[in-house]
Order: sequence, then structure tokens, then C-alpha cells
Amino acid sequence: MPERITSRENGKIKYACKLAQSAAFRLEEKAFFAEGLKLCLELAKSCPIKVIYYTEKALAKSPELKRFDCEQYLVQDHVAEKLAGTQSNQGVFAVFGQPSANFLDLPHNGRFLALERVQDPGNVGALIRSAAAFGFDGVILSPGCADPFGPKVLRASMGAAGRMPVVTCPNLADAMAQLRAWGSTCLAAALYNSRPLNEVDGAYPNGVCVVIGSEGQGLSDGVIAACDAAVRIPITGKVESLNASVAGSVLLWHFRGEIQ
Amino acid sequence: MPERITSRENGKIKYACKLAQSAAFRLEEKAFFAEGLKLCLELAKSCPIKVIYYTEKALAKSPELKRFDCEQYLVQDHVAEKLAGTQSNQGVFAVFGQPSANFLDLPHNGRFLALERVQDPGNVGALIRSAAAFGFDGVILSPGCADPFGPKVLRASMGAAGRMPVVTCPNLADAMAQLRAWGSTCLAAALYNSRPLNEVDGAYPNGVCVVIGSEGQGLSDGVIAACDAAVRIPITGKVESLNASVAGSVLLWHFRGEIQ
Repeated sequence: MPERITSRENGKIKYACKLAQSAAFRLEEKAFFAEGLKLCLELAKSCPIKVIYYTEKALAKSPELKRFDCEQYLVQDHVAEKLAGTQSNQGVFAVFGQPSANFLDLPHNGRFLALERVQDPGNVGALIRSAAAFGFDGVILSPGCADPFGPKVLRASMGAAGRMPVVTCPNLADAMAQLRAWGSTCLAAALYNSRPLNEVDGAYPNGVCVVIGSEGQGLSDGVIAACDAAVRIPITGKVESLNASVAGSVLLWHFRGEIQ
Repeated sequence: MPERITSRENGKIKYACKLAQSAAFRLEEKAFFAEGLKLCLELAKSCPIKVIYYTEKALAKSPELKRFDCEQYLVQDHVAEKLAGTQSNQGVFAVFGQPSANFLDLPHNGRFLALERVQDPGNVGALIRSAAAFGFDGVILSPGCADPFGPKVLRASMGAAGRMPVVTCPNLADAMAQLRAWGSTCLAAALYNSRPLNEVDGAYPNGVCVVIGSEGQGLSDGVIAACDAAVRIPITGKVESLNASVAGSVLLWHFRGEIQ
């Protein structure tokens, strides 16, 4: 039988909560925390599972949870509430090791999504999910983006961050220069001095990187200058702008890779 | 000078709160409530403004608020908090008349978005925003969709619901039959027995209706059967599905109208 945890002050619980709350601690530990049966099962396909926590009720519903080859803890409902930060939780939680990914290991001639200072976790998550769905080979983040292994991003991405390399680069303009040196075309999403998407070819056999800025600020001039060209999604005058994850996903669909 | 409201129990405040909270009351009053300077200014371009409420601070920042030809109230900060339901508000609120729209007045040969039981206000709002952005002529809702004039939908749509007819039909399958009788093609978004989007022509000069179901359930069999054909967005096996407003917006982009 798995060990029981009855106290919210248990060290194993505090460790999980700290992983959920602190991006710096996740980086230090090369680990992250996820909540929810479906998300945990999905992540377990691509990331090493280290610890699993479940309530008695959750285990009765999903006895397969016991099969994971990792530390296991049966937690009381009030402990699950602390892990979840909410009463309405599914009683399934896990700690995973972060997949290691390096910019220099990214496939040359691949398709990439790059984000500059996109802070909203829902947008970062939805964009990672769309990139995985549309045959992209990886995601490149500037400093200041929401952590791809934070709880809200994991939820919005449905765990796609485990299925694809996601790397953070100290300087996004330098990363674009490197991709271009490898033969890729870097396309900045920008409203001005840009070509409308419907006039831009979607096929880039030597690789392409779609570069997107934050909802409020867009891309910095430095990153735009480091790209080959800029593209925009033409819209009517009836609205000022599109939702950020919608706009990015329409671009990703246009520049999609092979979908098998 | 505008009349001052110092009590949270003032009838004009209670009326606005009831509009914010109750879809049935909005329908009865043919009115709705909106919060935020940008959203209110945007909505005022397309919907009749009936009442405007602002704090002293908000008026000092945006003196143009006084120019609206409608009832005006200067509200104390604690009253603004009641209107907003939160402390962090911009101190600008308004009541608008709902634009009236009828299914039978929709332009024949137009482009439409139809939603069946899409309950999430963020998704309904983002989809209305995308439809307006991509040159659609209106939105058709089944019963059970989030109210397009509810506060969360207004925020997610950035007021686009005022710029386009949005109609609710008692029976979506009947509405599709009527659109087809007018010569339009109705396309159901469905994962099975459907054609991949990249193999489907986007131009429908006689009109097209893109029909989307809820994130969890998809479209009902009856609505799918009432359409001409079904389409799906092909995705890799790395994710199970796309975010609902992303998926709908990619379809809307593909079937976009003229964008001027």
C-alpha cells in the first residue's frame, strides 16, 4: 500500500506546492507539478514521473494510477485541497522531471514558434498546443514569457510542452540570427510594414520560425529587425485586434508542417 | 453637473447590477451593462447608450465621457466597486440598448458563424470577435449558448457583438435548413466523417455558414445532418484537440469574407 499523508504540513506536500508556485524552484529542481487525471496521464507519456499523489476516491476510480513506477502517496481530501489550491479537484497530482532541451539541439530546417515576452499563461499554453497540433518542431521563448511548466500553462497546453522541445533563449534576436544562419526563414508577426498572410506562401522546406509578441506590446524593434520579413493577419475595421492565441494559431496553421 | 450616487443601494445601481448578472433580465429590458473605458467607447459606436456611470477619477482622466447624450451619474469609489464586482476597475460603466436582430433579416448569401450550446463565455466572445475580424455578416446561436451581451462575453469579444447581427434561433437545424434554402452552404465542424480543411475550398460566393459545437460535446447529430458537409482541422497526434476558440477561428479564417 502507498504511504498515507494526513498532514498539509508534510514535506512532500510542501515540496509539490513550492513546485506549483515558483518558476525559479522548478528550474532549480528541473521538475514540475501537474494536477488532474487526464493531464497527468498525458504528461506521463513524455516526461519522467517522479511522485504521484492521489486521494482514496481518485484511486478507486482509476486503479491504474498504482501502476506508475514512482513514489506514491495516498493523500487525505484536505491535503488534496492544499495541493490543488481549490476544493473542486480530481484528487490526482504528480511531480515530473522537466525534459531537457537545448537551442543548439533543435533540428535545423525545422518549424518553430518563438514568443517574445508573452506573459499570459493561457496564451502561452494555447500557442504551445497549436504548435504541437500543426506539426511544429519546437518552441523558443524569450526571457519574461510565462513558464511553460507552470500550472496554468500546462492546463492550457494540455501537456503539449512535454511533446516538443521548449527552450528559453537569453536573447531572442540572437536566436533568430542563428536560425537564419541554419537556413530558416524567420517571420515576425507585426501590424506595420508587413505583408498580409494571404499573400505569403506557407511552405518553407528549409525551415521557418513564426515570431509572436505580447498582446499589449507586440514584438520589439530589435526582434523584428532580426527577422527576414513581417506578416500580419488582415482584419476588417469592425474590431481592433484578434485574441492573441487566436492570431498566433492562425499564423501557425498557415505555416503548418506535415500533419500525419 | 451629473447627479451623484453615494449609496450602493441606489435603484440605478441595483438596476445595472441586475443587468450584469441576469441574462433573462437583459432580454426583458432589451439592454445590457458594460464595464471599462475602451469597451464602453467601442460599444457606443454601435449601440444606443442609455446610462453612463463614472467615478470622479475616471472623469478627470477622460472628460469626453460627459459628452454622451444620456443619463449620467458620478459614483463614489465604493459604488463603482459594487458595479464592477471588484476593486480593480476603471471607474467607467454604461448601460446600452441591445441592437435588435432577426434571423429573417440576415443577408441572403452572407457568411455566418453558428454556435450550438457553446457555454464558455470566453470562447463565445473570441469567436464573435474573430467572425467580425474575418468579414462575417452575423452570428447565429442555439439556445444554451453564453449570452453575447453578458459581461464576460463582451470583454472577450471587445464589443464585436454590437457590430454584427447576433441572433438566437430556437432550433439550429431549422435555421441551417433555411440558410440552405437561401442558397448558402452549411459546414459542420466535426472530427468524424469530415473533410480536412486544407482540401476544402474557402470561397462560397452564394454564402456559407460555419457551424461549431461545444468544447466537450461537439455538434449534435441533428445539426450535423442539417448541414451540407462536415470539415475538420487536421492535427498531429501530439495533442488530442485544439483550444475551442482557436479551432473555430482557424475555420473562420479559412472561410473568411472580403476584408477591406
